Amino acid sequence: MIAKPEFIEPHSSTPLPKSTKVYLPGTIHPDVRVPMREIELHPTQSRDGRIEVNEPVRVYDCSGAWGDPTFHGDVTQGLPALRRDWILRRGDVAEYDGRPVTPMDNGYLSAQHAQYASQAERNRLIEFPGLRRRPLRASAGHPVTQLWYARQGIITPEMEFIAIRENQGLDALREKFGPKASRDSLLQQHAGPSPDSPYTPSVLRRFPQRIPQYITPEFVRDEIAAGRAIIPANINHPESEPMIIGRNFLVKINANIGNSAVASSIDEEVEKMRWATKWGADTVMDLSTGKNIHATREWILRNSPVPIGTVPIYQALEKVGGRAEELTWELFRDTLLEQCEQGVDYFTIHAGVLLRFIPMTARRRTGIVSRGGSIMAKWCLAHHRENFLHTHWDEICDIMAAYDVSFSIGDGLRPGSLADANDEAQFGELKAQGDLTRRAWDRGVQVMNEGPGHVPMHLIEENMAKQLEWCGEAPFYTLGPLTTDIAPGYDHITSGIGAAMIGWYGCAMLCYVTPKEHLGLPNKKDVKDGVITYKIAAHAADLAKGHPGAQYRDNALSKARFEFRWEDQFNLGLDPETAREFHDETLPQDGAKTAHFCSMCGPHFCSMKITEDVRKFAEEQGVSAEEALKRGMDEKSREFVTQGAEIYTKE
Amino acid sequence: MIAKPEFIEPHSSTPLPKSTKVYLPGTIHPDVRVPMREIELHPTQSRDGRIEVNEPVRVYDCSGAWGDPTFHGDVTQGLPALRRDWILRRGDVAEYDGRPVTPMDNGYLSAQHAQYASQAERNRLIEFPGLRRRPLRASAGHPVTQLWYARQGIITPEMEFIAIRENQGLDALREKFGPKASRDSLLQQHAGPSPDSPYTPSVLRRFPQRIPQYITPEFVRDEIAAGRAIIPANINHPESEPMIIGRNFLVKINANIGNSAVASSIDEEVEKMRWATKWGADTVMDLSTGKNIHATREWILRNSPVPIGTVPIYQALEKVGGRAEELTWELFRDTLLEQCEQGVDYFTIHAGVLLRFIPMTARRRTGIVSRGGSIMAKWCLAHHRENFLHTHWDEICDIMAAYDVSFSIGDGLRPGSLADANDEAQFGELKAQGDLTRRAWDRGVQVMNEGPGHVPMHLIEENMAKQLEWCGEAPFYTLGPLTTDIAPGYDHITSGIGAAMIGWYGCAMLCYVTPKEHLGLPNKKDVKDGVITYKIAAHAADLAKGHPGAQYRDNALSKARFEFRWEDQFNLGLDPETAREFHDETLPQDGAKTAHFCSMCGPHFCSMKITEDVRKFAEEQGVSAEEALKRGMDEKSREFVTQGAEIYTKE
Repeated sequence: MIAKPEFIEPHSSTPLPKSTKVYLPGTIHPDVRVPMREIELHPTQSRDGRIEVNEPVRVYDCSGAWGDPTFHGDVTQGLPALRRDWILRRGDVAEYDGRPVTPMDNGYLSAQHAQYASQAERNRLIEFPGLRRRPLRASAGHPVTQLWYARQGIITPEMEFIAIRENQGLDALREKFGPKASRDSLLQQHAGPSPDSPYTPSVLRRFPQRIPQYITPEFVRDEIAAGRAIIPANINHPESEPMIIGRNFLVKINANIGNSAVASSIDEEVEKMRWATKWGADTVMDLSTGKNIHATREWILRNSPVPIGTVPIYQALEKVGGRAEELTWELFRDTLLEQCEQGVDYFTIHAGVLLRFIPMTARRRTGIVSRGGSIMAKWCLAHHRENFLHTHWDEICDIMAAYDVSFSIGDGLRPGSLADANDEAQFGELKAQGDLTRRAWDRGVQVMNEGPGHVPMHLIEENMAKQLEWCGEAPFYTLGPLTTDIAPGYDHITSGIGAAMIGWYGCAMLCYVTPKEHLGLPNKKDVKDGVITYKIAAHAADLAKGHPGAQYRDNALSKARFEFRWEDQFNLGLDPETAREFHDETLPQDGAKTAHFCSMCGPHFCSMKITEDVRKFAEEQGVSAEEALKRGMDEKSREFVTQGAEIYTKE
Repeated sequence: MIAKPEFIEPHSSTPLPKSTKVYLPGTIHPDVRVPMREIELHPTQSRDGRIEVNEPVRVYDCSGAWGDPTFHGDVTQGLPALRRDWILRRGDVAEYDGRPVTPMDNGYLSAQHAQYASQAERNRLIEFPGLRRRPLRASAGHPVTQLWYARQGIITPEMEFIAIRENQGLDALREKFGPKASRDSLLQQHAGPSPDSPYTPSVLRRFPQRIPQYITPEFVRDEIAAGRAIIPANINHPESEPMIIGRNFLVKINANIGNSAVASSIDEEVEKMRWATKWGADTVMDLSTGKNIHATREWILRNSPVPIGTVPIYQALEKVGGRAEELTWELFRDTLLEQCEQGVDYFTIHAGVLLRFIPMTARRRTGIVSRGGSIMAKWCLAHHRENFLHTHWDEICDIMAAYDVSFSIGDGLRPGSLADANDEAQFGELKAQGDLTRRAWDRGVQVMNEGPGHVPMHLIEENMAKQLEWCGEAPFYTLGPLTTDIAPGYDHITSGIGAAMIGWYGCAMLCYVTPKEHLGLPNKKDVKDGVITYKIAAHAADLAKGHPGAQYRDNALSKARFEFRWEDQFNLGLDPETAREFHDETLPQDGAKTAHFCSMCGPHFCSMKITEDVRKFAEEQGVSAEEALKRGMDEKSREFVTQGAEIYTKE
C-alpha cells in the first residue's frame, strides 16, 4: 500500500520566501550540523542614492529537512536518521527484537476485529512503508538519558547542537556589531528583568533567570544536569533534531495533532505535523484516539524533525474498548514499551491524580476536564484504590530511562474554567508532581511538569512560583493559560495572552491552543493560527526575558518597515504569505511594494521623510550621530528637558 | 441624493442569536433607560430527568438602537436624539447659527475644485440627508462639561445612566445569589489584586484601584470630579449613549475607522461603525483623510450610538493640501469649531510634541510614527517655533469646554518599534501631557492621555506607573501595546497581549489594532477581528482587576460548556456565529448540538459523566455539598492533604 496522492502536500515543503537553509558546524563534535533559516534582504536605498547592504537574518528553524529544497525525500521514506551514529557511538545501547505489533495496538480487539472493521476504518490503516529499524535500548546497566550523561560531565552531540541552535548565529553578529551593541546597532536590545526595577515580577526575584550572554555546550550540560532543562530525545527517534526545554533558553511551543474517534485520517495528521513544524512548532504531541493509533504514530515519528510527545493512557484506553475501569498496570506497561520502541520522545503521565484529591473536584464549576485526569479518576473511583501510575512510578521511570523518554508529568486536575483556577485540587496535584519529579531524577529520567489551563491574569504568576518551588525548578509546560472563558472560537487569543505572560515568568514550553478549542478538531488553518499565535507569545516572552539576540529580528523588521522595504518586512515576519496578502488587498500593484508610502497615510505624507528632516535638524543643532555617541545622547537630552522645563514654568 | 442600496447592510442590524434588548430605568432621572442585551439560555437536564432553569444573562451592549429589532430607522435618518432633552434641561446651552460648511471641509480647495473633482471622488460625496440641527454651545458663562457638573455636585442623567450600565444588572443577581456569593453560585469570583499578595504588580500598590462592590451614580460623579474618569459626550452628539472611561470602571475599547486618500468610501465607513459597535466597540475614532471628510463624519455621527473621536489635525492638513508647514492656528481653530459643532466627542491633540523633544527622535530605530506627531514635528522644524497646539492650549481648552469635547492628548512621539520603547522622547512627551492635563482640568475640560505603541512586556508596567504619576491619574488610553514587531498580519494578537496586561495595570481604554496594521486598511472582517480581540483583552483585564460581576458571564458559559449546552455556549460567547461555525465544521448534524459529547473525545468518553461519579463518591465519603458548606470545604481538603502527605512519606 502506498500513500494517497493528496498525501504529499506541496505547501508544507515549499520553502518560505527568500529563505535558504544554512548549516552551522559543531566544534567538539564536527559531525554536528545545525540548521538555520537564512532570510535574504534587499539593500537600503537612501534618497541621496547611497546603498546600504542589509545582512541576511538567520532564524531558528523547526522544519527539518522538509524545509530544505535540496532534500528530495518524501513521507513514505521518512527522514534521515540524523542522530543514529551519535547514539550508537556512545556504546551503551543494543538492538533487540521489539514486541510484535498487534491489531490491538491499532484499536482492534483482535485480528478478526480488524478484518471486520468498517471499510472506512480499514481504508485509513495504511502501514508506514519505509525503513523499519529494530529498537534500541540501554545495555550497559545505566540510564541512556541526556540527564545521565550530563551528570557524568559528558557533553553529547545533542548538547553542542543545542548550544549552537540557541545562539541563532549571535557570535557572527557580535563580531560585526561589537560585543556591547550600541543603540544604533541592530543588536541593540532592552535588558531583561532587573532586580533593581520595581516592575520585576516577584517570581523572577525568588527564582532569577540564569541566561548567559552566550550559550555554551557546557552551559547546556549544566542546566540539564541540574534538571532545569530537558532534551526530549528517544534513542529510537534518531530522525529528530535536538532541542532544549528550560527557562534559561528560548521559550518553546508545542502543537497538538492527532486523529480522533470521529474525524481525521493518517495523512491529515502527518501533514499537520509537517505544517506545524514549518511554522515553528518545537515539539508535536500526537493525541490520537480511536483506531489506527500505532500506524498513525509510526508515520509521524519517521517523518518528524521535532520531538514527539504522547499520552500513553489514551492508547491504553482504546485497548480496553474505552472502559477506564478495565485498565491495568500490565496493559499500560506494554503500551509504554510499544511507544518507547517506536521512538516517542516524551510521555504525559497523570501520576499526580491521587485518590485523595478527587473529592476536591466535586464542587468545581467544571470538574475534571483533562482527558487523562478523568480516565485516572474514573479508575481510582471504580477500584477505590490509588492511581496505578503513582504506585508503579519507579517501574515507569526505569522503563523510560532505558530509552531516554522524558516525563511530562500530567496535570489531570487542571482547571477547566476560570472559576476553578488555583484551587486545592490543582495545587495538591502540583505538589505531588514535585515529589514524582525528584523520584524520576533519582532514577536518571528527564522531567518537565504540565500546568494549566484556565487562569485569570492576576493568578498566573502564582502558578509559576509554586511550580518552581515545589518541583525543584524542573521546566514548566503549560496549556495557555486561557485568561477568559467567554470567547469560544478565539481561544488561541484568550490563551496566547496567558502564554506570553507565563513565558516571561519562566515557563519553558507553551502548549498551543487553536481557534477550534472547545468546539472541534483543528484543520490546517487552525493549526497554523495556533502555531503563529504561540510563536508570538514565546517570542514576546523571550524579549521580556532579555534573551540575548532575541530583539535582533524585531530590529531588522522594524528597519525594513521604516525604510518601506515591503518585501523584507513580509519575509522577516512569522508569516510572510499572510502579510503580503493583506498588503495586496489594499494596494495590489507591484509598484506599491517599492513605493515609499503605504495605504494608511497615502502618497502625500510619509513619516520616513519627516524623520530625515528631524535628523538633519538634529545635526544642525549640533546633535550629530557621532557627537551624540561621544557626549552621550542621554545627557544632552536631559539638558534639553531641564532647560525646557524651566522655560515652561515661566510661561 | 440617497444612499446606495448596499449601504443598508442587514448584517449589522441583525440581533445576535437568542438575544433581546432590555432597558433598565433610572431612579434619580426616570427618563433614563439603560440598554442591555439579554441572552436567553436553555434549561439544564440532568441524567435523572431533573430540570434546572438557567436565568438569562445580561451583558453590556454598545450596539445602540441598531441592535434593537423593534427599532425601524435607517442610516439615512440617523438615530434618535437620546440626550437632547437632558442637555437642554440643564439650561446652560443655546442654539446658534454654526459656521457654514465649505467645500474645503470636504477637502476641495474651493467650490470650483469640488466641481472639477474626479467622478470617483464626487460619487463618494453624498451628503447626509437626515435632520440637521443648529449647533448648541455653552451660554451661561461656564463650561458645559460633565467635569464641571460633577464638581458642582450635580449627578447628571449621563452619570446615572453609566452607573446602571456599569453594574450590568448585578443588583438583581445579588438578590438571587445573596450578597456574598458562595463558591457554588454563578456569582462566585476571584478577588482582584490584593495588597498582601506578592503577585500584585507594583503599580497597583502605588496607585490602588478604588472599584466599589456596587457602582452608584454618586461614585460616577466623584470619579469624574477627580479627573480619574471621563464621559465623552459632546452636546451636539445627542444620539450617543453615555459611557465612561476610567480605571475604576470596566475597561473600554476603541475601534478606528476612516477612509483614506487611497481607499474606502462613506458607506463603508458608516457600516464599519455599526459593525464595530455590534461586536462591542465602546467608542469609534473616525481617522478619515483625503476627500469628503466632513460628509463622512456627518453620516457617522448621526448614526453612532457611541462617542466619536477624531484627530482634527488630519482634516486641517487636507485643507492645506497636505503641506504641514502651511498649517496655521487660525485654520486649526476653525477646524476645531467645525468638528465641535458637528458633535465629535473627543479630540486627539498632539500638543505634547515639543520642539525640544524632536531631536531626541533622531537616532531612533523608527523615528516618529504617529501621523499627528509627524505633522507637528514637521511644522515645528519648518518654522523653528514651538508647536502651535501647545502655545494655544488655553484657547483650545476654552473651545472644548463650550461643547464638552474631551481631550485625548496625543502621544505623537510614541515608539514605532520595540527598540524605541520607553525612551526619552516618549517619556518627555508623557510628562508634558501631565502638565497639559492639569491646565485642561483648570479650565473644566475632561482629559485622557494617549499611550503607546510598541513595548516589550516587561516595560509595559512602567508606562502605566509614569502616566498615573505624571498625569494626575487621568485615564490612560493606549494603542496595544504591541509586544513584538515580528508578526505583521497578526498585530491584533501581538498587541492584544500588551493591551490585556496594561488594562490590568490600570489602563482605562484600549485602542484596537487590526490584523491589517502596518499593511493596509482594515475591511469588515479585520474590524471584527480587532474588536473581538480587544473585547477579550478588556474582559481579561476586568477579571484580573476583580471587577464586580465580571466573572459571571465566564461562569455561565463554563456551566453551559460543562453541561454540553452547545447553543448556550455559542450564544454566551463574544462571537456566537464563529463558535457555531467552528463546531459545525467537525460535527455539522443538529443532533451533535444536544449530544453529551464533543468531537474531541468522541461519544465513548465524557468528563461530565466522570464528574457525576466524583460527586457521588464525594457524597459517600461524607463531603456533601451542604456539609461542605457548613464545615468548610477548605478545611476538609487541607485535612485530606495533610493525612495524605503523611501516608505518602511512609510509602
